[in-house]
Amino acid sequence: MTEPTIHPVILCGGSGTRLWPRSRKAKPKPFLPLVGDRTLFEATLDRWLDEDNFAEAVIVAGEAHLPHIADQAGGDATVIVEPQAKNTAPAIGLAVALLPKDAIMLVCPSDHHIADSAAFTATARGAAKLAAEDWMVAFGIAPDRPETGYGYIRTGEPISGSSGGGNRVDRFVEKPDRATAERFLAEGGHAWNGGIFAFRAGAFMDELEAHRPAMAEAVRKAVAGGRYVGQEFHPAPEPFAGISGESVDYAVMENTERAAVVPADMGWSDIGNWEALRDARPGDDAGNRTSGEAELGECRNVLVETDGPRVSVIGLDDVIVVVDNGEVLVTSAAGAQLVGKLSGAANQ
Amino acid sequence: MTEPTIHPVILCGGSGTRLWPRSRKAKPKPFLPLVGDRTLFEATLDRWLDEDNFAEAVIVAGEAHLPHIADQAGGDATVIVEPQAKNTAPAIGLAVALLPKDAIMLVCPSDHHIADSAAFTATARGAAKLAAEDWMVAFGIAPDRPETGYGYIRTGEPISGSSGGGNRVDRFVEKPDRATAERFLAEGGHAWNGGIFAFRAGAFMDELEAHRPAMAEAVRKAVAGGRYVGQEFHPAPEPFAGISGESVDYAVMENTERAAVVPADMGWSDIGNWEALRDARPGDDAGNRTSGEAELGECRNVLVETDGPRVSVIGLDDVIVVVDNGEVLVTSAAGAQLVGKLSGAANQ
Repeated sequence: MTEPTIHPVILCGGSGTRLWPRSRKAKPKPFLPLVGDRTLFEATLDRWLDEDNFAEAVIVAGEAHLPHIADQAGGDATVIVEPQAKNTAPAIGLAVALLPKDAIMLVCPSDHHIADSAAFTATARGAAKLAAEDWMVAFGIAPDRPETGYGYIRTGEPISGSSGGGNRVDRFVEKPDRATAERFLAEGGHAWNGGIFAFRAGAFMDELEAHRPAMAEAVRKAVAGGRYVGQEFHPAPEPFAGISGESVDYAVMENTERAAVVPADMGWSDIGNWEALRDARPGDDAGNRTSGEAELGECRNVLVETDGPRVSVIGLDDVIVVVDNGEVLVTSAAGAQLVGKLSGAANQ
Repeated sequence: MTEPTIHPVILCGGSGTRLWPRSRKAKPKPFLPLVGDRTLFEATLDRWLDEDNFAEAVIVAGEAHLPHIADQAGGDATVIVEPQAKNTAPAIGLAVALLPKDAIMLVCPSDHHIADSAAFTATARGAAKLAAEDWMVAFGIAPDRPETGYGYIRTGEPISGSSGGGNRVDRFVEKPDRATAERFLAEGGHAWNGGIFAFRAGAFMDELEAHRPAMAEAVRKAVAGGRYVGQEFHPAPEPFAGISGESVDYAVMENTERAAVVPADMGWSDIGNWEALRDARPGDDAGNRTSGEAELGECRNVLVETDGPRVSVIGLDDVIVVVDNGEVLVTSAAGAQLVGKLSGAANQ
């Protein structure tokens, strides 16, 4: 069997407010070099650059992101411009309606970090084979801590007779409480839902029609009435405006009879907050990470990120200091999840 | 007995590097409004403004401080300009040599905070009476914690027959270790040496001649060869240059047979570092203190001081954040004593 050609579909959504003040409305998280020299978006594009069997990426993004995409993606990618933000199911629906029915899509957020590209590619190939057999495939990220910030996937029976490996999904679990997350980790058989999926376009549309017929119709009409401006595809706004926004998890994955999960152990992080960003970067012997001019004394596991002013830190453990364009954030690692609620982050 | 007229002598010394980055070489600690709206120097002058029996202050300062003194002291005070920084004994010696022999001097650092002015004044009056009887009088600050950053005074026998109250000094103790400081606090009979003294000018000069004759001679010659420029008195630099710098504690107080101590319970702080500064300011219900634009969430006993950029802090206890003119300092309260060793503070 030949390897199916994989069409990467990159979803540029989310505001990254928990990474304020570095991530701002005007230049949000995907377009920042948060880990290494490349932005998360550039690194997402890089991931399949040198691989066979990967087609040019299709990017789904809102109007506000277009200048950043033009800067960072070069000129070749097709960009589907969402008339409105409607969550992931309609965003994927637009790409589905635009691609050929037999296209195997690999849907990836634009703002995740994956340390092990080779593992990612291998997982993607397995997922693509399952998708070619009309499985709706989720990446199941190997969990390494009792994280309460992610949804979980309970792994079911192995899928026999597929060359793609993988398992049926027993069920999707909403973000658990701490005790439940600890149980999942101890029991095994649970993976994080990383928001990375593989589908055959036609199969996805069939599922959308079965479970969200109005959304399926609206998406098809928006694409049928859309137009290209260069490499930008602009769906018709009216049909899209009537859609009720919904995640692909709710609209499709939790309803389909053919949900599959492939195990993904690839150094994944959603860089969901400053603590996650700290952990995705290599530290020195004391676990400290600094970017910009910084002096640390008697510190452990401290992250300093400054765009100019010198930052001097003494005697702190597990603290994050960010200086960006006239804003100074100082938070405990545990407090990092609350950053989005600060006035500075919320009222941009 | 009439109350003696008290001549305040204000020593402007010390660099305040532990209060970096707010305190800088160009505008050091005494001349900053660190507690309340008045600078520490202004507050020092204010302390006897409305009191009877206080003469105009004599200020002893280095050349670099003159513009700040001119700004903040108004035009009336006499300023003795130290040709070089030689520590407190020679600085006091200059004032002693300039004042009449029977002047009762109250020597005060320019950069301490005293919350209870009435208690200060009452203590000063008692000390002045003892000084008029040729006692060399130290203020013994009532200790409220086992501080290892100050010298201590062990109180001796009560001085009988003086209307000034007070006790003989049993001995001066160098900065103790923690266990010793705890013992002092438990035992009682020990006070902090706050660097505030009362002397009769002639008595001080007699003691200096007895214990540091070269210093006494150099000081007298520097004053004899000095000249006034307006209200500024410039001692002759040559005799002063030969002096070995020494503190008044070492040169006089530890050697005299007539060392006395008066108890001083007056809300004193030397504002020696950011932790001390935090503690000298009133806090909110959670013990937080902010100056400038700040937002705190789930914080306790946090001090934020910013000259412009907004500072947002989450989930921290007992931490100090200072933003000043392009420098950002974040320190644990305990780490505050190390601030002077930071590159930013040390290499100004």
